[in-house]
Amino acid sequence: MSDGLTVPFALAAGLCGLATATTHLILTAGLAEIAAGSIAMGLGGYLAARGDAEHFDNERIREQVEVKTVPDIEEKEIYELLAEYGVSQNEGKPFMDALKKDHEKWVDFMMRFELGLEKPDPKRSYISAGTIAISYIIGGLIPLLPYFFAATTLTGLYISIGVTAVALLVFGYFKSKFTTDRPILGAFETVLIGGFAATAAFFIAKLFA
Amino acid sequence: MSDGLTVPFALAAGLCGLATATTHLILTAGLAEIAAGSIAMGLGGYLAARGDAEHFDNERIREQVEVKTVPDIEEKEIYELLAEYGVSQNEGKPFMDALKKDHEKWVDFMMRFELGLEKPDPKRSYISAGTIAISYIIGGLIPLLPYFFAATTLTGLYISIGVTAVALLVFGYFKSKFTTDRPILGAFETVLIGGFAATAAFFIAKLFA
Repeated sequence: MSDGLTVPFALAAGLCGLATATTHLILTAGLAEIAAGSIAMGLGGYLAARGDAEHFDNERIREQVEVKTVPDIEEKEIYELLAEYGVSQNEGKPFMDALKKDHEKWVDFMMRFELGLEKPDPKRSYISAGTIAISYIIGGLIPLLPYFFAATTLTGLYISIGVTAVALLVFGYFKSKFTTDRPILGAFETVLIGGFAATAAFFIAKLFA
Repeated sequence: MSDGLTVPFALAAGLCGLATATTHLILTAGLAEIAAGSIAMGLGGYLAARGDAEHFDNERIREQVEVKTVPDIEEKEIYELLAEYGVSQNEGKPFMDALKKDHEKWVDFMMRFELGLEKPDPKRSYISAGTIAISYIIGGLIPLLPYFFAATTLTGLYISIGVTAVALLVFGYFKSKFTTDRPILGAFETVLIGGFAATAAFFIAKLFA
């Protein structure tokens, strides 16, 4: 969503730096960017999530084969892992013996504890693709809307800066609220990135104008 | 990198659909997009990596406090986790008693096993930002270069399609080689996404032309 807000906003702002820019051109380029960005990132997100799921399945099969063919080595690996947490072979033995009773659970434990992998939700790849694409489209339309209604590209640019700054502040605040304990700093950082990206795009366009 | 190849390529291709498109306009919009995209995604990657590191630190402090203040509840949590792997409280007790001897290691075990979190490399946020930004710039320049040298925008578009398709094939092949066991399928999927994104951008631009 923040990419969707930032990149089309910055591109439109950049194109305002062109002497020949018209509202028509800015909207066309902006909408083309939104189409390209939402598809590329949505499908890219789908492939990444599907890749994670395949990676998990492949690793699980590998562990299953290892537990069956070289159980001694796999057992030694668990004792080595336990040793990192200060648990000796003697102290870990009852635990290890219990684990060995069920090979599937032994494999599950290796997946989680040795490889740090969790089974990805099979539906995640579709949800991930859809969420990314839709957020990019919604995010991208916000900075473009002012150009639809403004009389000149410059008026559009000013309103777009204001609207996008508010949207990035709100988005940055709530995103940071969920991941860190400094939502206000996060809000300003998100706006700063958008401003920095738009300034760079503007000066690159000016350089070519 | 695949976003960097795909989005500027698709945007440039889309703008070729405009009757008024000049090489100058396509290059300006393309370079402005690369500037905006590399900054937005690079700094976005930096914030995401830093957010992960903060999340880990916050969770670790929370676990430290819990192990100190409510050790009984934390102990019960570990027995519940072990039960999921078929290990009874009796079988897990020697292991649990060893873990309890060192509170830091107990916390480390909870981080890894209860929360599935690994300590992020503190340098990762900078490396992540730099890698994303530089790959986006390199990826984005590949589809734009043909327009520099081509006589008309249409010739530029044709060469750009060829060059970008080859670059996406090569990139998709190697990326899929590392994450799945189907690199050739992955190569074609990556090309398909690029083609799909460019086609959508082209028709959106045509619609407005």
